[in-house]
Amino acid sequence: MSDVESIKAFGPARSTVQGAPLSAEEIKDYNDYFKASCYLALGMIYLKENPLLREPLKKEHLKARLLGHFGSAPGQIFTYMHFNRLIKKYDLDAYFVSGPGHGAPGLLSQSYLEGVYSEVYTNKSQDGEGLQKFFKYFSFPGGTGSHATPETPGSIHEGGELGYSISHAFGSVFDNPNLIALTMVGDGEAETGPLATSWHSNKFLNPITDGAVLPVLHLNGYKINNPTILARIPHKELENLFLGYGWQPYFVEGDEVESMHQAMAATLEHCVREIQSFQRKARTSGQAVRPRWPMIVLRSPKGWTGPRKVDDNYLAGFWRAHQVPITDPQKNPEHLKLLEAWLRSYEPDRLWDSEGRPDARFRRMCPDGNSRMTANPVANGGLLKKPLRMPQFTDYALAVERSGGVKAASMSNMAQFLRDVMAMNMHNFRLFGPDETESNKLGAVYEAGKKVWMGEYFEEDANGGNLAPAGRVMEMLSEHTCEGWLEGYVLSGRHGLLNSYEPFIHVIDSMVNQHCKWIEKCLEVGWRAQVASLNILLTAVVWRQDHNGFTHQDPGFLDVVANKSPKVVRIYLPPDGNCLLSVMDHCLRSANYVNVVVADKQEHLQYLDMDAAVQHCTKGIGIWPQFSTDAGYDPDLVMASCGDVSTHESLAAVDLLLQHFPELKIRVVNCVDLFKLIHPIDHPHGLSDREWIALFTDDTPVVFNFHSYPWMVHRLTYKRPGARNIHVRGYKEKGNIDTPLELAIRNQTDRFSLAIDAIDRIPHLKNKGSAARQTLLNDQIVARTEAFETGMDPPRLTEWVWPEGGLLSKISQAAEGKMPVRTK
Amino acid sequence: MSDVESIKAFGPARSTVQGAPLSAEEIKDYNDYFKASCYLALGMIYLKENPLLREPLKKEHLKARLLGHFGSAPGQIFTYMHFNRLIKKYDLDAYFVSGPGHGAPGLLSQSYLEGVYSEVYTNKSQDGEGLQKFFKYFSFPGGTGSHATPETPGSIHEGGELGYSISHAFGSVFDNPNLIALTMVGDGEAETGPLATSWHSNKFLNPITDGAVLPVLHLNGYKINNPTILARIPHKELENLFLGYGWQPYFVEGDEVESMHQAMAATLEHCVREIQSFQRKARTSGQAVRPRWPMIVLRSPKGWTGPRKVDDNYLAGFWRAHQVPITDPQKNPEHLKLLEAWLRSYEPDRLWDSEGRPDARFRRMCPDGNSRMTANPVANGGLLKKPLRMPQFTDYALAVERSGGVKAASMSNMAQFLRDVMAMNMHNFRLFGPDETESNKLGAVYEAGKKVWMGEYFEEDANGGNLAPAGRVMEMLSEHTCEGWLEGYVLSGRHGLLNSYEPFIHVIDSMVNQHCKWIEKCLEVGWRAQVASLNILLTAVVWRQDHNGFTHQDPGFLDVVANKSPKVVRIYLPPDGNCLLSVMDHCLRSANYVNVVVADKQEHLQYLDMDAAVQHCTKGIGIWPQFSTDAGYDPDLVMASCGDVSTHESLAAVDLLLQHFPELKIRVVNCVDLFKLIHPIDHPHGLSDREWIALFTDDTPVVFNFHSYPWMVHRLTYKRPGARNIHVRGYKEKGNIDTPLELAIRNQTDRFSLAIDAIDRIPHLKNKGSAARQTLLNDQIVARTEAFETGMDPPRLTEWVWPEGGLLSKISQAAEGKMPVRTK
Repeated sequence: MSDVESIKAFGPARSTVQGAPLSAEEIKDYNDYFKASCYLALGMIYLKENPLLREPLKKEHLKARLLGHFGSAPGQIFTYMHFNRLIKKYDLDAYFVSGPGHGAPGLLSQSYLEGVYSEVYTNKSQDGEGLQKFFKYFSFPGGTGSHATPETPGSIHEGGELGYSISHAFGSVFDNPNLIALTMVGDGEAETGPLATSWHSNKFLNPITDGAVLPVLHLNGYKINNPTILARIPHKELENLFLGYGWQPYFVEGDEVESMHQAMAATLEHCVREIQSFQRKARTSGQAVRPRWPMIVLRSPKGWTGPRKVDDNYLAGFWRAHQVPITDPQKNPEHLKLLEAWLRSYEPDRLWDSEGRPDARFRRMCPDGNSRMTANPVANGGLLKKPLRMPQFTDYALAVERSGGVKAASMSNMAQFLRDVMAMNMHNFRLFGPDETESNKLGAVYEAGKKVWMGEYFEEDANGGNLAPAGRVMEMLSEHTCEGWLEGYVLSGRHGLLNSYEPFIHVIDSMVNQHCKWIEKCLEVGWRAQVASLNILLTAVVWRQDHNGFTHQDPGFLDVVANKSPKVVRIYLPPDGNCLLSVMDHCLRSANYVNVVVADKQEHLQYLDMDAAVQHCTKGIGIWPQFSTDAGYDPDLVMASCGDVSTHESLAAVDLLLQHFPELKIRVVNCVDLFKLIHPIDHPHGLSDREWIALFTDDTPVVFNFHSYPWMVHRLTYKRPGARNIHVRGYKEKGNIDTPLELAIRNQTDRFSLAIDAIDRIPHLKNKGSAARQTLLNDQIVARTEAFETGMDPPRLTEWVWPEGGLLSKISQAAEGKMPVRTK
Repeated sequence: MSDVESIKAFGPARSTVQGAPLSAEEIKDYNDYFKASCYLALGMIYLKENPLLREPLKKEHLKARLLGHFGSAPGQIFTYMHFNRLIKKYDLDAYFVSGPGHGAPGLLSQSYLEGVYSEVYTNKSQDGEGLQKFFKYFSFPGGTGSHATPETPGSIHEGGELGYSISHAFGSVFDNPNLIALTMVGDGEAETGPLATSWHSNKFLNPITDGAVLPVLHLNGYKINNPTILARIPHKELENLFLGYGWQPYFVEGDEVESMHQAMAATLEHCVREIQSFQRKARTSGQAVRPRWPMIVLRSPKGWTGPRKVDDNYLAGFWRAHQVPITDPQKNPEHLKLLEAWLRSYEPDRLWDSEGRPDARFRRMCPDGNSRMTANPVANGGLLKKPLRMPQFTDYALAVERSGGVKAASMSNMAQFLRDVMAMNMHNFRLFGPDETESNKLGAVYEAGKKVWMGEYFEEDANGGNLAPAGRVMEMLSEHTCEGWLEGYVLSGRHGLLNSYEPFIHVIDSMVNQHCKWIEKCLEVGWRAQVASLNILLTAVVWRQDHNGFTHQDPGFLDVVANKSPKVVRIYLPPDGNCLLSVMDHCLRSANYVNVVVADKQEHLQYLDMDAAVQHCTKGIGIWPQFSTDAGYDPDLVMASCGDVSTHESLAAVDLLLQHFPELKIRVVNCVDLFKLIHPIDHPHGLSDREWIALFTDDTPVVFNFHSYPWMVHRLTYKRPGARNIHVRGYKEKGNIDTPLELAIRNQTDRFSLAIDAIDRIPHLKNKGSAARQTLLNDQIVARTEAFETGMDPPRLTEWVWPEGGLLSKISQAAEGKMPVRTK
């Protein structure tokens, strides 16, 4: 066979595994099952009436708008139904991940035939009336999507955006030693970056403690309008590629149905037995090594079983079979006839009885109860979820004897809490991150669980490597894979946390968007139990990326997240270590959210003891009286901040202001929970306007130092009373190779700029503030000059703490007859 | 050799290509050159004084803050310097792409030694004083970054965010038949998804018309704190992987320097000759086939040539060599000694003369002039850029006889313009997209240039395949690869356009962020010439993704882009076909921007003839008097819109309102250029407040129908006079399987909701509006019920056009004594 011949999808089966496990009778049954399934997949695209063609097909029976995708359905059906035999034979715990784009018809047909769909949606019963509804409401307003949406029983993977089937599947089998995720991978999605690297997930799978992923790469040859790369490279190259990825590929290729049945049945069985044998060997020996896990390459024509040509155009085995294969049967009577003939070729008359019930054999060919793949509770992970056993987070409190007077490392302290969360939940909690856990000061977690590593070990790994076959930390330099694993892990009922550098979290903007959409939709699906929140901890924050330069400065992930539904997104910026503990405890206990926590990993000033931190985080935003001089009176200025570095500079600015104007009535407000700022109509966390005024007033200048891009605060507060008084400083894409001070000055978020802003905005300082303004500017220039010369910020700034006793004396000074009467 | 032994980085060279092309004298030269280069790489991390160690090293000579990354430098240097020999020998046109993270020290050392750095930065001269500055300002405030930033001569690839070296390199060699991009790929970045799939770029490289990429996968074994996957899989697996990707891998492994010199020299030469032979064969025969292009796997220890251990900890050949290898020489005198010994092991005394000039041999070992890789003008592509030859876009005008009264397909019309742009620029313009060009109605471009495809061809490709070895359209189902190619293509002096579905452009949020940062920095680098804008056309927009459901609805890319510097980002939402033409013409002619154009691909109402469209787009925002009834008087309502679908519904709402209130004074405002909305202090396109008031007034209710998330408009307009009067409707994450009407209604962007909004906001309609309000609500309910029943929106809505003569009669009615006197 020539190179080109060897990669065509037509002809009798060509397969790596030889064998004919099926009897003639079984072949007949599988033929019929396959026909019935393909009938369902095609019917749901076209029919709104006459679902079993009990009368001749008329255009009135067709949906007015034809939607849906047939292309990958037959191949997916073929795989699914042959795996059913093995579930029954070996009593497997398995479920199905449908990777190809718009792959729902395949999966829906199987859920319907195995009876799950009708159990979940009782009006889509296994009879003529139910089938009519099943057909009509596919890709129909208010109905069923053409992806494996949350409404689809047995799905944790929608596949609307492509590329994550393998990483989702791996996430679900971690710590599920008996589970097999039968995972169809589209050859379209296989071209995406996330999918291309996720094949390496096998280096992180422990054969003792984890289950298995059985990928079936579906080479159906075409995307929307193009051939796929993997279907058009020489056979040997394709084999090498998967050997290189560490898999053992078994090929099943062709379109001649009977021989394909035997080939697929034999190959799937070989794979299952191989998986079981690898697992048995590892589990009896206690030796976790990385075997060459099996995978299948299924090469079948796109739109398999459909007509090869319509008019003069190729259909089956070409990209025209991708979506609605015959596009105009309502208008073209010849095409209507062709469609009818095609539908009838699946013999609905024979395979459904007079009541519209599918042939009774079909149900017997499926497993029972929860062994049916679309009934597997792993795909409704909330049902299986056990709450985390949590240590008391207050036990990890940092001592804060004087607010603003002590420094501590918030992140490495919190890491100890995380370590103990891990230790108490060694089978249902994992930490994920792209090679940054140590750098992010979370290394303490390795005391509870090391990094999973099934690659080769070297002697030097013993010294600081923290690698182990059975670990609890998942690190691969692919944010996509880490996020995909975490999503799969959470959706199958477990808990986890992703840690990442702040700038590069944008790499997975789109994945987080899609996860938000998934869990939002789940809220509308009555039978879906809530899963644990997906927690994202961002550090290496913009204000400490001075030396790494401009590429490492991007706090804009918050803007992406804030656009998602208020039902599912939460954003926290704890100002200090005890707040960080409180926030993390809250996030880990919560369900069905995407929680984003932003915190610096360096040493920081500490402001709140644990009691105060819990109170502050519970409120989400509040006045900090210990740094305020308004004493409940109308302030001259509200100095607000959100974010730890931002808060630090904001307080230093207050100190500067009070040095120049001891009588100034400043109110310090700190925000932990970003959505406190938005109106409650737009997010349930939003302050009422009354609460807002109690903090910010409606007529006082507000200088707001914000962690991220300043416009975010305006976007959140535009409806607020006094919104025009809010002056926000934040990151504005002004960076270079800088010191932290210089980076802040460029973006005017440093203490000097903030103090100057305040002077400019307080009406009664307009004149008398000019000397102070000048001094502050001079001090700023001196400081930056020093920094430029030494390469480091002046210690008098970096070592600044809130002055001891300073404020009290200022307040008492001010109180001595200078404080005006409260005006409202 | 055991499996584990075979993948270690130590020992004498092991290489696929055998040979010893270097003489003993040359080996000596290369040894010295390597030493000098490593000295530079290490020196720049540590030294601010005493650059050549002419006196004993004291801690005062060290920088106060130690920054930078040594780990990958020796391997990069080794590759670079051996390629110099071949540039000289074969007169190659080549440049260097540095993929590994923080890889600048390697590249900077080479630029310095070949003299380019001192030519570009004359104060970093090749003498003691220049060297001191060269060292001091590395990773120093205001100085040189630790990535290959825009300030780095010869760089088009910063490598701050990892994963794009291969796609950038391919982008640069397309249509550059003589160019070789010598591309170092880090084994860390090789784990990212974008990099993992970009190896498949070889299926899109034409050996006749394109140049070549010579990848050198640098297996230095470790990331920040972890081993790398590819360095820890069996040798055979690694080889298979690259054979599977379609490359011929040649291994060079070890750390014994002399044998490594021979191995690298022989291997690189073999690769160059193989590339030349493939190209010659294709070019003389005219047969463009896909050869198995060569690549190199260089396995060398991380921190190669450094000490294996410091105290009891592994350094070279372990992850501790990643960044600053000895972290505390300022504090630890033993470590200071160790550092000095290490630096002196590179023999600076012998290899630099008394003036601090490097050994004269070194310069002779480098190529001359622009043949030096860091001087290659391809990496300063603006120098090579030729303006596009442009057809007259007005020739493609859609006839608009009656504004709002005719429909046409804006996108497929524009595709003809694009086709002709392509035809007139067959060597420096390409269209990129992830398998969506046809779906996006841009198929007309295939008449000028087909899709590049170097995979196997099947017979069916002849019928609608549009594939060719020499095409102008680049389609792979990887937004990452398409964007990376486009970036490389543009940065090397050419022009291009990426088209994508709107929702999935988020996949490359981070890449676009990084490109924005790159071109912004370039503006600050005097010697960088401006490159063509990177143009992104988004279609399959949110409002037409009703049937594809929730996953396909995300217009939030605009929020990501709007956070970037106003110097480089532009966002356009043309309302109709002639505006789309005008905008595209403008974008394709522009330089140094990221232009984002959002337009639906379906049939649409047309509003402006070409003259009016050019005027409207030039202004960017304006009143549409043909739909307005205020006749220059103070309006009761400003009905504003931005985006084509949004404009359509907005005008339909005006029609509804006028049916109920013929005397209503409505002003219709349309925005094409999104940044017109923001204050000019924040973006150069921003309207002045005076211009703003002339459009929106400062006291009239504004109902603004926006294409994307509504908060974007508030973020842009919060400073505007009358900002509180702006009521924005947009997408709010409310979707399902819907009809377009239903999707709009959920998000309250449909005509009925907009009209009701208007009634609620116009004070004098508060009472008399209630009947109309009720009617509109009823009409809305009737329409959505119809849609639910049929699966399609009611034709009376979808076929709505602006009523003929309707407005004129309304205006004249109103004008008859009813129009109030202009009040200001």
